[in-house]
Amino acid sequence: MSETDPKPQTDVNKLGEFGLIDHLTQNFSLTQPSSMCGVGDDAAVIDNQGFLTVVSTDMLVEDIHFDRIYHPLRYLGYKAVIVNLSDICAMNALPRQITVSIALSNRYGVEDLEELYAGIELACQHYRVDLVGGDTTSSNRGLIISITAIGQGEPHRITYRSGAKAGDLICVTGDLGAAYVGLQLLEREKQVFISTPHVQPDFEGQDYIIGRQLKPEARLDVVELFHKANLQPTSMIDISDGLASEIFHLCKQSATGAFIEEAKVPIHQQTELMAIKFGLDPITCALSGGEDYELLFTIDPADLEKARYLPDLYIIGEITLAQEGIKLHTSGGNIHPLQAQGWKHF
Amino acid sequence: MSETDPKPQTDVNKLGEFGLIDHLTQNFSLTQPSSMCGVGDDAAVIDNQGFLTVVSTDMLVEDIHFDRIYHPLRYLGYKAVIVNLSDICAMNALPRQITVSIALSNRYGVEDLEELYAGIELACQHYRVDLVGGDTTSSNRGLIISITAIGQGEPHRITYRSGAKAGDLICVTGDLGAAYVGLQLLEREKQVFISTPHVQPDFEGQDYIIGRQLKPEARLDVVELFHKANLQPTSMIDISDGLASEIFHLCKQSATGAFIEEAKVPIHQQTELMAIKFGLDPITCALSGGEDYELLFTIDPADLEKARYLPDLYIIGEITLAQEGIKLHTSGGNIHPLQAQGWKHF
Repeated sequence: MSETDPKPQTDVNKLGEFGLIDHLTQNFSLTQPSSMCGVGDDAAVIDNQGFLTVVSTDMLVEDIHFDRIYHPLRYLGYKAVIVNLSDICAMNALPRQITVSIALSNRYGVEDLEELYAGIELACQHYRVDLVGGDTTSSNRGLIISITAIGQGEPHRITYRSGAKAGDLICVTGDLGAAYVGLQLLEREKQVFISTPHVQPDFEGQDYIIGRQLKPEARLDVVELFHKANLQPTSMIDISDGLASEIFHLCKQSATGAFIEEAKVPIHQQTELMAIKFGLDPITCALSGGEDYELLFTIDPADLEKARYLPDLYIIGEITLAQEGIKLHTSGGNIHPLQAQGWKHF
Repeated sequence: MSETDPKPQTDVNKLGEFGLIDHLTQNFSLTQPSSMCGVGDDAAVIDNQGFLTVVSTDMLVEDIHFDRIYHPLRYLGYKAVIVNLSDICAMNALPRQITVSIALSNRYGVEDLEELYAGIELACQHYRVDLVGGDTTSSNRGLIISITAIGQGEPHRITYRSGAKAGDLICVTGDLGAAYVGLQLLEREKQVFISTPHVQPDFEGQDYIIGRQLKPEARLDVVELFHKANLQPTSMIDISDGLASEIFHLCKQSATGAFIEEAKVPIHQQTELMAIKFGLDPITCALSGGEDYELLFTIDPADLEKARYLPDLYIIGEITLAQEGIKLHTSGGNIHPLQAQGWKHF
């Protein structure tokens, strides 16, 4: 019964999420011949005699990742699936199956779960993935959703974070920062609602940024077009923690530098206006906001012609040699080191 | 912001865990050609061009599935892996990879996580599985561990719950009820410890039942021997919720009945003695206790000769026609319907 006599503990915040994972998994090595890629990419890659299975998992915790006040359960179910499918897409693989594990407190009833599963079902239908398993149990507090997504991919298509090389073009599939600004707006209206419950929230004309936060999509359409256009990105990651943070991941694992042209980073007009209203710099929202679930990828410049088939493509910079560091070319003509301030859930 | 205006809710307990899963997943169908088996067995089965991937997931929640007072984190990490590997074994497949997602409150520090991961690592080494991914995040309360296990299997080996037929022998791989009685003992000593903290817990001579609760094993050895002996069980399930509950699952999915010989159900001497000490009927502990993680399987009587290679094999009954129901032949010579009282975490 030694657990009642606690030893002094190091705060997990000291390491941060990525540092913590690195620290905890440093002793683990891959021993199975089928384990092609383990911790450290968007998803694990498992070889089934030449045919690859891609596996990713994400956990959403109430009051950490979502707030019941402004996340309706149906949207939450949808989003919980999307964040996992986005990881499969980021491997240039096709999502096929999910498992859903849920822990919930007695505050939740059957009708709540029906709503949550209606959102899960909608995402399954929309992305043609099957729910194949899961676990449902109690929690003492709130709702926890843990989803594992499974995808398929051909060996020559699977795209890692580590394949970028100097000269490659850095691309994103859509505008950034909207989900973050949308969250700020939801948070503000929540505070208004708490202090004056009879006042209805004012989301007039803000449907885009609210939608980006509450109902994100995974860019499976882009992955399918990569296959159709026979365009093979050299590296890829999904933007869940913020563009700057993801650029750092790509560069670290590819052992490269990068420069980003601030003026090329796509920002939606609603995002820009609302950011300014909140006294935030729109480019900071786009660089550090997170939860946009767009894809960040690099291509060989020789493949640029093939990329024109893509519905949304923004070339925002170029991969450089590692010694050149990771730089931001500002709209004002300055060059300074890019700051990574991804979302940390610690 | 409608979530603040709650509608009347149906208590999830009304449906129970299995009823709830059935209810929530009734609208989901399998659409992917690779989805061979979804919700409703120990694991999902995915076809990769003839080579099968088996996927199972389980969530452990603090104060629901474990108590920090008597579950050291190292043991907990080990057990969290085992309960998932056991599901893979129950499909007659070989576990290969796991993903581990953790949510933890600020009560936990880096050293705690190191302990937890040391247990996870030990299980990975012991069962030769690779940790290939996961997620680490905060929770507002306690520790939640969600693990997904991935296994491989050949199509002719994968064993479902649904293959039993009348005349098949019902077998278990080891004694039952020990984990449950071990938990009762730990719970009793916890109460003693809370009321008189200077009194050390008395586990003298109880190492077997304590071990069965704190450090269970998955019967991968049995699965490997099935392959070696070329013995194909007709159906299989792991005993996580209790023998009676699992018999009901097998019979329901195989559309059969069963009879169980009470006198044949293996019970360890320590289990028997401690059960009696607690005023519990040992056979009830064995039938309804759960968490033993032995395998329950059925074989064609013609295969009995092959089964002698197995290290532990207890033939406890026989599959019958559905109309004969599920019966217990008591040691006293009576026959009555088997009662399923598996553990429900609601």
